[in-house]
Amino acid sequence: MTAFYLLDIIGTIAFAMSGALVAMNKRMDPFGVFIIAFVTAVGGGTMRDILTGRLPVIWMQDINYIYAIIGATIITIIFRKKLRFWSKTFFLFDTIGIGVFTIMGTEIGVKAGFHPMISIALGTMTACFGGVTRDILCNDIPIIFRKEIYAIACIIGAITFLILQNLVSNVNLVYIETTLIVIIVRLLAVYFKFSLPAFYSNTTS
Amino acid sequence: MTAFYLLDIIGTIAFAMSGALVAMNKRMDPFGVFIIAFVTAVGGGTMRDILTGRLPVIWMQDINYIYAIIGATIITIIFRKKLRFWSKTFFLFDTIGIGVFTIMGTEIGVKAGFHPMISIALGTMTACFGGVTRDILCNDIPIIFRKEIYAIACIIGAITFLILQNLVSNVNLVYIETTLIVIIVRLLAVYFKFSLPAFYSNTTS
Amino acid sequence: MTAFYLLDIIGTIAFAMSGALVAMNKRMDPFGVFIIAFVTAVGGGTMRDILTGRLPVIWMQDINYIYAIIGATIITIIFRKKLRFWSKTFFLFDTIGIGVFTIMGTEIGVKAGFHPMISIALGTMTACFGGVTRDILCNDIPIIFRKEIYAIACIIGAITFLILQNLVSNVNLVYIETTLIVIIVRLLAVYFKFSLPAFYSNTTS
Repeated sequence: MTAFYLLDIIGTIAFAMSGALVAMNKRMDPFGVFIIAFVTAVGGGTMRDILTGRLPVIWMQDINYIYAIIGATIITIIFRKKLRFWSKTFFLFDTIGIGVFTIMGTEIGVKAGFHPMISIALGTMTACFGGVTRDILCNDIPIIFRKEIYAIACIIGAITFLILQNLVSNVNLVYIETTLIVIIVRLLAVYFKFSLPAFYSNTTS
Repeated sequence: MTAFYLLDIIGTIAFAMSGALVAMNKRMDPFGVFIIAFVTAVGGGTMRDILTGRLPVIWMQDINYIYAIIGATIITIIFRKKLRFWSKTFFLFDTIGIGVFTIMGTEIGVKAGFHPMISIALGTMTACFGGVTRDILCNDIPIIFRKEIYAIACIIGAITFLILQNLVSNVNLVYIETTLIVIIVRLLAVYFKFSLPAFYSNTTS
Repeated sequence: MTAFYLLDIIGTIAFAMSGALVAMNKRMDPFGVFIIAFVTAVGGGTMRDILTGRLPVIWMQDINYIYAIIGATIITIIFRKKLRFWSKTFFLFDTIGIGVFTIMGTEIGVKAGFHPMISIALGTMTACFGGVTRDILCNDIPIIFRKEIYAIACIIGAITFLILQNLVSNVNLVYIETTLIVIIVRLLAVYFKFSLPAFYSNTTS
């Protein structure tokens, strides 16, 4: 088992838990909770695989993803009372998932020989599309368009990955370092309430 | 013409009518009604075909699906006044479509050699994704996440199919039996107001 | 560079600007504006390519699409004050994009040997799906299901294209003529407030 594969399973579990938490917050039934967990966990990778033509999608060919999501959903449901400060828990899992999946997606783009900008876009999409789908299914405007700087952290991490993978020979180290960069940038951004500049000077439009 | 193909067309017509009824209830114009009917009818199968890489999708290669949807939409528009108790009519068509498409999708998963859990997921997805897309396009939280036990009926039917297809030699009989199982489970579930257990003891979260 | 390719880039720019205008109207941050611009610009073509199995999608293989969208987004952001009568500007760009993409999609369907009805559907989908995705991401009921006759203009243009391409030898001329037909039909439809017949005689349902 490579660090790559292990990170993918960790990201899947983290995103499944973040999805399950949102679904329970919307008071969905257990099946709804599982579906939202599932979509949040595999949504980004599925979109990446569809757009690049890597079909059938990976989670249909490796049943471990399904087991990871089922396990994560059950654990989240069981421990829902311990996760009472759910917004912080949700944020933590979401951030881990975003960090892992950004590097996963960028790596796949690089291996497939796409333009660096496309590889960065694939990384960002892998990280963010699951959450976008989760929000659309829950009838919210996707959080990524509204708050914080999810995507900037992904893009910085993806660019760092593109640079480091040419310089550092230990590929597992590059995965872990750049994943941590995405996570740290995002945590710092939230801590310092950094956000992108607004450009709306007039009050209404 | 096989029972398989015939069931597929029947499911397509049933889902197209259910979609057209929802769209008319939302007071959409005739084009909007057709699109919602179309998406409801082919959405699940299209998602299944994309994820498994069976492209171009089937309704692009067999024009009969388009004719079936156009016909179903026109009939629904013409007889909309006779369908005045539309919620029951909608429910009936929706249930038939769900029964047929569950078995269709599961069969395709089995034939393609996927893990039984993936085959069950493909069946459930084929049955449910059209309705999910319909609800998203109409800006509702998908009904499947909120009410009744749509998916449980699909999963029971899909499991029964997986068991019976190894035991019963007459494959057409298996199709029809398991389709009826999905329909009957769903009707019973609604009749007895059975729903999944809630696990929200605290009032707000 | 063919007229086909040039039209595609023009349509991409027009749709990116229309998407950016909607996103700025929703007061999204710069990243959200870019994503909505991107999705609006490539959404229709991406859906067309996925359904027909033309993967990886075209904008992953030709970086010019990304440059066009980035440029269009930046220009829209810079000149947002000059575009203060944004609804008319939005409408104009949207109409140009719809005209161009209808003919693009229909042409691809014809070349791939699909049934004429499927080719028309591909054209209409290429033109309309980006806007549908934009509206779903912004949590609106897609405008296409509610107002004006977007799709009728597309269908008329696509049918004209199917007829003319057999009669006229200058293929660039056919592209431009039929693109203009879509644009003119849509402008006339809005000018004369033409809309599809309603069939809701009862007040509520």
